[in-house]
Amino acid sequence: MEINAVNALTYEDFVKLFGNVVEKCPLIPAAIWSYRPFKDLADIEAHMREFIHGLPDSGKEGVLRCHPDLAGRDLQSGTLTRESQEEQSRAGMTTLDSAESLHMSSLNTEYKERFGFPFVICARLNSKADIVRQMSERLNNDSATERERAIEEVTKICSLRLRNIVLSDIQTKL
Amino acid sequence: MEINAVNALTYEDFVKLFGNVVEKCPLIPAAIWSYRPFKDLADIEAHMREFIHGLPDSGKEGVLRCHPDLAGRDLQSGTLTRESQEEQSRAGMTTLDSAESLHMSSLNTEYKERFGFPFVICARLNSKADIVRQMSERLNNDSATERERAIEEVTKICSLRLRNIVLSDIQTKL
Repeated sequence: MEINAVNALTYEDFVKLFGNVVEKCPLIPAAIWSYRPFKDLADIEAHMREFIHGLPDSGKEGVLRCHPDLAGRDLQSGTLTRESQEEQSRAGMTTLDSAESLHMSSLNTEYKERFGFPFVICARLNSKADIVRQMSERLNNDSATERERAIEEVTKICSLRLRNIVLSDIQTKL
Repeated sequence: MEINAVNALTYEDFVKLFGNVVEKCPLIPAAIWSYRPFKDLADIEAHMREFIHGLPDSGKEGVLRCHPDLAGRDLQSGTLTRESQEEQSRAGMTTLDSAESLHMSSLNTEYKERFGFPFVICARLNSKADIVRQMSERLNNDSATERERAIEEVTKICSLRLRNIVLSDIQTKL
C-alpha cells in the first residue's frame, strides 16, 4: 500500500483499516487521521505514539484497560480480537499446560490488583518464558513507572499491527 | 444501582457496563475508572465531560469519527451499536421515505466533506424535523465552532446513556 493510497482514504476507510492498531481504541487512529497527509509509515507511527503519550495518566490507563489478559478469559471464551488472538497464539499462550495456566492466572490477578490495569506486553517480541519472567519483574515497579512501561509496549504492538496492515500487500511501498 | 455498587466494580465490569456511553470509545469510561470513588452519577458525568473536553482537537475529532452517520450505511446494513440503533429509531431515522432518505444522504455527504467527521446530534432530544434543520444550519459553522458544537452533543448522548444504565434498575438510588 503506497503512502498516497493511505492519504487518500476517507476517515471511514482509515478507521476500518487501522481501527484496532491500538486494542479496542479506534478513537486513536480516528484522531490521527487529522494529521494527513502522512510522509510515510514512520510518520503515521510517530503520530500514534505522540497521541498516546499526550494522553493524561488516566487516559493512558484507559488504553491499557482496553487490553485483554494474557491467557485470560477472552482467550478461553474465544472473544479476543483477531489481532490479539494471533499475537497470544504465537507467544504460546494458547498451549499452556495446567500448571502454566494457573501460574499466569495468579500473576494476572496479582498484577491487576496492584496496578488497576492488565499486564500488557508485545507478545510478538517475547517468548513464553520472557513473558512470565517480565510479568514477575514488572510487579515490583511503582505504579507510575509501570504505567509508562506498559504504554511503551502498547506503542510496540501498534507499530507491528500498522506494519502488518500496510506492508501486507507484496506490491506496496510505504 | 447505588453509587457504592458502581464504585465497587472492577475496571473490567465497569468497562463492560459503560463501555459504549461514548460511541465505540471504551477508552473513555476505562480512563475515568481511575477517578473512583465517585460521589454520585453527576460526578461520573463530570469526569466523562472533563476527559472529552481535555482531549486535543484531533482527539475530539477522533471521538466524532467513531460515530455512525444518521440514517446511513450502518443503519441500512444493521451494523449500528444497540444504543445507536435505539436512538436513531426513536428519532424516526428508520422510517424515512425515499425523498427524506436522499435528502439526509446528501446532507451527510456535504457535512463530512466540509468537516472531516460525521454529523453528531443527540437524537433522543430532537425530532426528525429538528435534526434536518440543525444539520443544514450547522453546515454554515466554521470548523472549530462545529467541532465544539458536535462534542457538546457527544456529552449529552453520554449523559443519557449513563443514566439509562445506572437508573434502569427500579430499586437504584445513585
